[in-house]
Amino acid sequence: MRAEGFSLKGYLAQRRALIDLALDGFLPGEENDPQVLFEAVRYSLFAGGKRLRPILCLAAGEAVGGEMEDLLPAACALELIHTYSLIHDDLPAMDDDDYRRGRLTSHKVFGEGIAILAGDALLTEAFRLLTRRELMPGVEPGRLLAVAGEIAGAAGVFGMVGGQALDVRSEGQQIDLETIHRIHSLKTGALIRVSLRAGAILAGASKMELASLSDYGRRIGLAFQIADDILNVEGDRESLGKGTGSDAARGKATFPALLGLDASRARAEALVVEALGSLETFDERAEPLRAIARYITARDS
Amino acid sequence: MRAEGFSLKGYLAQRRALIDLALDGFLPGEENDPQVLFEAVRYSLFAGGKRLRPILCLAAGEAVGGEMEDLLPAACALELIHTYSLIHDDLPAMDDDDYRRGRLTSHKVFGEGIAILAGDALLTEAFRLLTRRELMPGVEPGRLLAVAGEIAGAAGVFGMVGGQALDVRSEGQQIDLETIHRIHSLKTGALIRVSLRAGAILAGASKMELASLSDYGRRIGLAFQIADDILNVEGDRESLGKGTGSDAARGKATFPALLGLDASRARAEALVVEALGSLETFDERAEPLRAIARYITARDS
Repeated sequence: MRAEGFSLKGYLAQRRALIDLALDGFLPGEENDPQVLFEAVRYSLFAGGKRLRPILCLAAGEAVGGEMEDLLPAACALELIHTYSLIHDDLPAMDDDDYRRGRLTSHKVFGEGIAILAGDALLTEAFRLLTRRELMPGVEPGRLLAVAGEIAGAAGVFGMVGGQALDVRSEGQQIDLETIHRIHSLKTGALIRVSLRAGAILAGASKMELASLSDYGRRIGLAFQIADDILNVEGDRESLGKGTGSDAARGKATFPALLGLDASRARAEALVVEALGSLETFDERAEPLRAIARYITARDS
Repeated sequence: MRAEGFSLKGYLAQRRALIDLALDGFLPGEENDPQVLFEAVRYSLFAGGKRLRPILCLAAGEAVGGEMEDLLPAACALELIHTYSLIHDDLPAMDDDDYRRGRLTSHKVFGEGIAILAGDALLTEAFRLLTRRELMPGVEPGRLLAVAGEIAGAAGVFGMVGGQALDVRSEGQQIDLETIHRIHSLKTGALIRVSLRAGAILAGASKMELASLSDYGRRIGLAFQIADDILNVEGDRESLGKGTGSDAARGKATFPALLGLDASRARAEALVVEALGSLETFDERAEPLRAIARYITARDS
């Protein structure tokens, strides 16, 4: 794949299709009982997500020569965990959102009890998927355990769940830039970073490669979050699929609210440049990762 | 340990102390941020639970000659999963319970948002614990992955979460004995059975031993549930620590409601006899498992 001939749009569409097919195959169907649970799981999982985390996992593995077959289960597990976190975050006791990506949220369709259980199910199935050795013939079990441990760490109290708890506790309060930075890095950054690490470890990355891909992940994770905050201020309802300005309405601290729009944009752009720097020693197999980084500050949804 | 000299009461107290110490060591402390999350996790985890699942895991491993050190992390992971399921089941959107074991439930103390996150945290930390190879030096990684996979299976859509979804869907409806049997075996039976399987697999049980311990687990799991249903009808507030008769008040189907008290008691006793039969070929190292089975129909709380 040559850099100048690389189409990010085509690449992302192809990867999304591959991931959706794998998710469909790994997850139990709606013919199971109780049907409402399996429907709720699939309703949120196939709701038009961008599949950013699994795409990053596959791209990191590819950048160091990994096999697609050995990467797909972990990539899908990351999407299951991301989806569970969205369902629980949308609940009335958390962000109380009625819409996500232009569709009613899980609890609005299935009720709160089933929405909570659908989230629990997705989290549990993610770890089950990570233990299915027969799906990953090229990966030795010790490496698989390391990946499952890293993912659990990034999803848990010192990662996503901890960040969401900080966010719940901070709502309506004055918080400083350091705190908002910390909330972002735990709530969304940790899972993005571990997506790259998981792909790299599964593909047998060297210590140096793993450290570089981690740095890349940390930087684009934060850049994505700042860009999302900016879109939340600027975007229109149509292109984002949910109400805009909703962070401000809830008194949530965001980068634009604290730094202003221009400084936030400059910060995101600097992070993209640094992320590209993390990939300096990689060959053309890292081109998708480079294109994804460049895309962050260029997108409008 | 000779059968006639064996004190179940002393054994259970010693095991509870061992498990509580291990849980305390494996779990992060309340000095972490945000404190409310770590407090909520520990509030429910150290609430006077009987530690049935970890005790069964350790006892199954011991019955086939396993090392305590190699069994404790999985035993504790099972308790984390059990505790998460109680927190989520007590939520207003599920069973809406204000008290458990005589104390306010998590959402009554910390609010619904933090209670949901505390459950999420416990489930996630359970899987993280199962990946920590350094804690289980005698267990090869392939065996650890098998155990994590079995536990995820028993906790997920074809186990505990599926059973809870069936229960939520059935509330207030007329259901038959087959359905109530199915709800019980998924909602509580699957995790009890896997507690025995996890201990057995970690200790290197033979195929025959594993099958026998699974049968034992399936039988006592159901016996415990029937005995709980009976206690729910008969017990008094003091000995159970929550309102009794609450299943009937909510229109929940129970064995006593469908079979009557006497037939329910006979059923539980028959299951205990069958469970003892599953252990026929085991030596005196299975004495704790035998004593636990006999205790089910004798206890009053």
